[in-house]
Amino acid sequence: MIQKQYLMIPGPTMVPERVLRVMVREMINHRGPEFIKILKNVTEGVKKCFKTNNDLFIIPSSGTGGMEAAIVNVLSEGDDVLVLNIGAFGARFVKILKAFRANVDEIKFERGKAADVATVEKKLKEKKYKAVFLQHNETSTGVLNDVKSLAAVIKKYDALVVVDSVSGLITADLRTDEWGLDVVVAASQKAFMLPPGLSFVSFSKKAWEYYAKAKMPRFYWDFKSMKDFADKGQNPFTPPVSLYYGMEEAIKILEEQGLENVFESHKKLRDMARTGLKSMGLKLLASDDVASCAVTAVFPPEGVGADELRKKINEKYGVVLAGGQEDLKGKIFRIGHLGFCAETDVMIALDAIKKEI
Amino acid sequence: MIQKQYLMIPGPTMVPERVLRVMVREMINHRGPEFIKILKNVTEGVKKCFKTNNDLFIIPSSGTGGMEAAIVNVLSEGDDVLVLNIGAFGARFVKILKAFRANVDEIKFERGKAADVATVEKKLKEKKYKAVFLQHNETSTGVLNDVKSLAAVIKKYDALVVVDSVSGLITADLRTDEWGLDVVVAASQKAFMLPPGLSFVSFSKKAWEYYAKAKMPRFYWDFKSMKDFADKGQNPFTPPVSLYYGMEEAIKILEEQGLENVFESHKKLRDMARTGLKSMGLKLLASDDVASCAVTAVFPPEGVGADELRKKINEKYGVVLAGGQEDLKGKIFRIGHLGFCAETDVMIALDAIKKEI
Repeated sequence: MIQKQYLMIPGPTMVPERVLRVMVREMINHRGPEFIKILKNVTEGVKKCFKTNNDLFIIPSSGTGGMEAAIVNVLSEGDDVLVLNIGAFGARFVKILKAFRANVDEIKFERGKAADVATVEKKLKEKKYKAVFLQHNETSTGVLNDVKSLAAVIKKYDALVVVDSVSGLITADLRTDEWGLDVVVAASQKAFMLPPGLSFVSFSKKAWEYYAKAKMPRFYWDFKSMKDFADKGQNPFTPPVSLYYGMEEAIKILEEQGLENVFESHKKLRDMARTGLKSMGLKLLASDDVASCAVTAVFPPEGVGADELRKKINEKYGVVLAGGQEDLKGKIFRIGHLGFCAETDVMIALDAIKKEI
Repeated sequence: MIQKQYLMIPGPTMVPERVLRVMVREMINHRGPEFIKILKNVTEGVKKCFKTNNDLFIIPSSGTGGMEAAIVNVLSEGDDVLVLNIGAFGARFVKILKAFRANVDEIKFERGKAADVATVEKKLKEKKYKAVFLQHNETSTGVLNDVKSLAAVIKKYDALVVVDSVSGLITADLRTDEWGLDVVVAASQKAFMLPPGLSFVSFSKKAWEYYAKAKMPRFYWDFKSMKDFADKGQNPFTPPVSLYYGMEEAIKILEEQGLENVFESHKKLRDMARTGLKSMGLKLLASDDVASCAVTAVFPPEGVGADELRKKINEKYGVVLAGGQEDLKGKIFRIGHLGFCAETDVMIALDAIKKEI
């Protein structure tokens, strides 16, 4: 029997044929006049998705590269920083910060919970931090943080707000300028509906003040060098040209749909997934009030192995689900419903799960 | 009039239609069984081009990212290192090493010359270096270093040999294991005939001994983490999946052609370009004995601006040439003749130049 693939993991996500097609174009000179226009278009398009007028850098790297760039451009060894750790990607911030010898404190929230504003404020009262790191959407647990409220309290204590929105951006509203987010990281392979290979980082005026004092070693990730080249329509190093072609098309699709409608669609898919899973008697990791619009983490029925279930569903129906990460490995499975994902995709995933549990 | 493009810059290079076509494939799970096979295939294929059995890491980044990775995995702040600077990419090694606070000495050779073995040995006798950095092919000047002889003398003084072969690999023989090259860097957008977005770094046993003592901060570029994931057929972070599809096809093409034949073709194109340019009375930056097989740097006739000439040739014939870098900006132009480049492409480029000078 012919099988079709339904890639329901939280990235890389499915890519529209329109986007794949434009990526087949021949290479052009990345320092020539045509690329200048493309870089400008893509930068402006991504800025609209970030809701920002800050500088916006496009980096040849995975999302984690963007996270590293967000750190080394604002900090020095020994700086006191706080991470709001609600899952594997909060833990990743801790790891990168430790690798670059920042002095890291973390508040580790229970898996499946969002960062609690009161707990964060208590910590900020106790100790002065230069920067606070948090996720917009925690991919490993399917939890959406209340970035607006968290940023407000962090700013009250005058710390830099650094947000990883790699899996969150476009799936739920994020207002970089209105909420005062100093550094925001995103990537191409999530709701931008593109293959992996590009990360995006926005950088506020306050972040530039931090940059001036930041002593962590940097070259590839150096934003000053990126800004100098961006001013002449270039990148410091050779950019992944075909992904820029794809980004231009992806931005067109997002503009045709309208960003607010895209948020609504993601909410609908999330609610559809959660209602369906609950009706099968399955337990979800995150509660409704903090549920991610990008990915839903689910416990399998008692006695059923999460990874065995995923394997069976993949083999029988071509529906690709994600497993658990770190402590949750083998304990949960995750359904991605972001980017180029339709109601019919969620229907198929739910149906396949229902048949196999 | 319809115009066709001839992208004769030293990267990104022209991409064969076969390669572009396979890149249109839908995304797959980068942690699933199918990607494990692709990663293995691509790694084995690239190792053959490196002529190595060392570990080989594939990184989502431009070539400069690979250069940074080659540094931070083997050194600590304050380590004494030597750079053989024969052009802009030698200078780039110096910049990265300084950014990470190595104690850098450099031998700056005249632009258009290769690194001289005797001069290098004299320096190595004077001072003990932990590592020596050099280019296989210097893209900015079109000069091929005698890596075999340079590596032999560097190894005599027990320093680590780190080679940037980003624009050199596949255009001219490089025998990583036979010549004892500890760290070698390459990238996708040169003779691999692929769009930019991947870098490749090989890492010897001796390099791993350096790794164990190296204290430069690293997370994204960390080879231990890459090795741990590679052992299970994965990457630590989301890889640019479509470029891996393209790499599989590019490796097939290289295997069909045979690596030694590919070296011969590159030599032929180089000789054709040089003979043609000389017959027009143009002066070349590099002499025949050190001439690059990837790119030729040319002085325009007296009174003619290099960049004005490039612009005219681009507009009239669609032939895209590269300009000079750093000190050579505006003084030379460069013709790339690497990767998916045919005799007919060089013919057109030469003809266009002849008509416009």
